[in-house]
Amino acid sequence: MSADPQIGAAGLTGGTRELAGAGSQPAGGESEALARLEQLLPVPPAGQVWFGDDAAVVAVPGSRDGSGSTKRLLLASDCLVAGMDADLRLTSLADLGWKAMAVNLSDIAAMGGRPSYALVSVVGLKRPELEELYSGILEAASRYACPVVGGDLSGGHEGVVSVAVVGWVDGAPVLRNGASAGDAIWVTGELGAAAAGLRLLKEGGSVARSSPLARAHARPVPHLVEGEVARAMGATAMIDVSDGLTADLGKLAASSGVGFELSRAELPIARGATLEEALGGGDDYVLVLTARRRHDVAGAFYAAGLPPPYMIGTCTGVSSEHLLDGRPLPALGWEHEL
Amino acid sequence: MSADPQIGAAGLTGGTRELAGAGSQPAGGESEALARLEQLLPVPPAGQVWFGDDAAVVAVPGSRDGSGSTKRLLLASDCLVAGMDADLRLTSLADLGWKAMAVNLSDIAAMGGRPSYALVSVVGLKRPELEELYSGILEAASRYACPVVGGDLSGGHEGVVSVAVVGWVDGAPVLRNGASAGDAIWVTGELGAAAAGLRLLKEGGSVARSSPLARAHARPVPHLVEGEVARAMGATAMIDVSDGLTADLGKLAASSGVGFELSRAELPIARGATLEEALGGGDDYVLVLTARRRHDVAGAFYAAGLPPPYMIGTCTGVSSEHLLDGRPLPALGWEHEL
Repeated sequence: MSADPQIGAAGLTGGTRELAGAGSQPAGGESEALARLEQLLPVPPAGQVWFGDDAAVVAVPGSRDGSGSTKRLLLASDCLVAGMDADLRLTSLADLGWKAMAVNLSDIAAMGGRPSYALVSVVGLKRPELEELYSGILEAASRYACPVVGGDLSGGHEGVVSVAVVGWVDGAPVLRNGASAGDAIWVTGELGAAAAGLRLLKEGGSVARSSPLARAHARPVPHLVEGEVARAMGATAMIDVSDGLTADLGKLAASSGVGFELSRAELPIARGATLEEALGGGDDYVLVLTARRRHDVAGAFYAAGLPPPYMIGTCTGVSSEHLLDGRPLPALGWEHEL
Repeated sequence: MSADPQIGAAGLTGGTRELAGAGSQPAGGESEALARLEQLLPVPPAGQVWFGDDAAVVAVPGSRDGSGSTKRLLLASDCLVAGMDADLRLTSLADLGWKAMAVNLSDIAAMGGRPSYALVSVVGLKRPELEELYSGILEAASRYACPVVGGDLSGGHEGVVSVAVVGWVDGAPVLRNGASAGDAIWVTGELGAAAAGLRLLKEGGSVARSSPLARAHARPVPHLVEGEVARAMGATAMIDVSDGLTADLGKLAASSGVGFELSRAELPIARGATLEEALGGGDDYVLVLTARRRHDVAGAFYAAGLPPPYMIGTCTGVSSEHLLDGRPLPALGWEHEL
C-alpha cells in the first residue's frame, strides 16, 4: 500500500460508521463529537489507515519498516447495545451475539482481508442470557474460522457486547477512497432484505421469524469470500452496507471525491423488500465495490464459484451528485429503526 | 513457546480476571458463568493461549506454522463501566479513559510483551463527556506509544469504555503457569497505594485528590519495561496485580500448581496504606513474578535502569498453601470497593 494523502484527509469523517456504531447515536451530536475527536487523534504513518475506513490498516507489530513484507494487519471494533441495536422482543440474544461478530467480520471483508481472531467483552449479562449470547458468538466464530481468543465480562445495567477482530491482508487492502469517475459500481448481494425482515418481525405473525427476510435481519452474513475476490480482481474501492446503500456508497464517494448515478432497474431489490428499504434500510452487510469498466468483475466472481455481483451504476466526476435514474437521492440513509 | 498441557488446563478458570472484569460481577454467578462458557470454547493449537492468562497469545495472522518465526501477537481486552469500575464523584472521566488503557497495557506487560495498537469502543457518552474520556485515553496512548487506531461510538444509558490492545513478543511470553516450588516471588512496585488512595478520596478533604495515593488510584501505571526485563531475565511466571496481591498471586499459584509463603516484613506496603490494602486492595497494576533463586533479578532490573523489585516470598510444593509468616491468608482477595 502506498502513502495516499486522501487517507489522512478521510479521517474520522469518512469513518462515521466505525466511530459511530450502528446508527444508535443521534446524527447531530455524533457528527460534532466525531469532528472534535478527529482533531485529537494522531496522524498514522504512510501506508497505514487509522480510523476513516471499515477497519484500521496497521503494520504487523514488531516488523521493521522496509522489511519487504507486504502483509498488513486489519483491526476492526464494533459494539452493539441490547435494546438499541437489537430489539430483543423480535430477535434473540443468540442473534445479537451472531450479529456482533458478523458486523466486525464484514468490516474485514470490506477491506478484502481475512479474519483471524476475535476478542469479546460483555457487559450486563449473566447466565443464562450470557450463554445464549455466547452461543451466537461462537456459532459465527466457528462458521467464519475466527476463534474467540479472549475477552472480558463485567457487571452493568445494560447489555453491551463489544467485539474486536484482528485480520490480515497480504498486499494492498481495498480502501474507500480509490474510486474514480467512470468506475462502475457493484453490490455483492441483494438489498433491503434485512430492513424488510425487521418490518415483517414487527408486524408479527407465525411465519415471520422463519422467513428468509427475518433471517437476513437476525443473522447477517459477512461477504468475506466476495471481499477477497474483489480485492484480487482489482476493485478500486469498497465498503460494506451497514447503514444503507445510499449512506454507505455516499461515504465511499465522499472519500474518493466522486459522485454516483444509480440505475433503478439494476438494483437487486430482495423479494419482498421495497425500493426505500433497498436504498436506505441498512444491515444488509453486502459489499459495494467499484472497479474500472474493463475489469471482468462477473468473471472473477464466477471463477471463484460465487454468484456474480450486480452492476448498479457508475461513479461520476461531480462529487455532489448522488443520482437515481438522473434524479437526486436523499443525502443520507434512513435512520436505523429499532 | 512449547506446547504445555497446563495451558489448556488453566482455561477460563485461570483467567477469571480477564473474563471477569474488574471485580464488578458477583463472584458466585461469575464463577458459574465462566465454568459454563469454558465448555463452549475451542481448544487452542499448541503454542497459543486462548483465555486463561493476562492476554491471549496467538500466531501472527497469515504466518505458516513452522515458518521459524518466534514472534507472537498478544491480544488483551478489558472494559470498564462508569459508576461500577469507577466512582465519577471521586475521579474524572479522563481518569477512567486513562485507566481503561492502563489495565489493558498492564495485561500486555504481564506477558513480558510490548503494546502496539489500541481499539476503543465507547457506549453512552456524548460531548463533552466523550472528549474528557478520550483525553485520558489519548494521554495514555501517547505515553505508552500505543496509538488508538480505530473504534466505535454507540448510544446507551450507561457509560462503558471497552479497549482492545494488540501487542507482541519475540520469543516466549511469560505465562502464569510456569512457577515451581522453590522459586522466589517478586513484586515490581509498592502495594496498597491504589486502595489507600480510594479510601482517602472517599474521606474527602482538600489534599486528597492531589495526594500520591489518590493519584495511584486515578492513574495506574502499567509496568511495561519491568515486564520486558522480567521476561528477558527468565521469569518463570508473571501476572499483574489488578484484584489484589492475594487474589492474583493465588491465580498464578493455581495455574502453576504451587503454593506460596509470603514474609510480612518484606512486603513493600505503600506509605499510608494498610497491610490489608497491600494484600487485597487491588488496582495497583504492579507485576508479580517468580524466578529461580539463582537468577539475579535485582541485577537485571538495575542494569535496565529500573528500581529493583521486592522479593516477598517463595513458592512451595503444597498447592493449597497460601501463607503469610506461616499463617493462612484468606483464600480470595477483597472485593473491589466502589
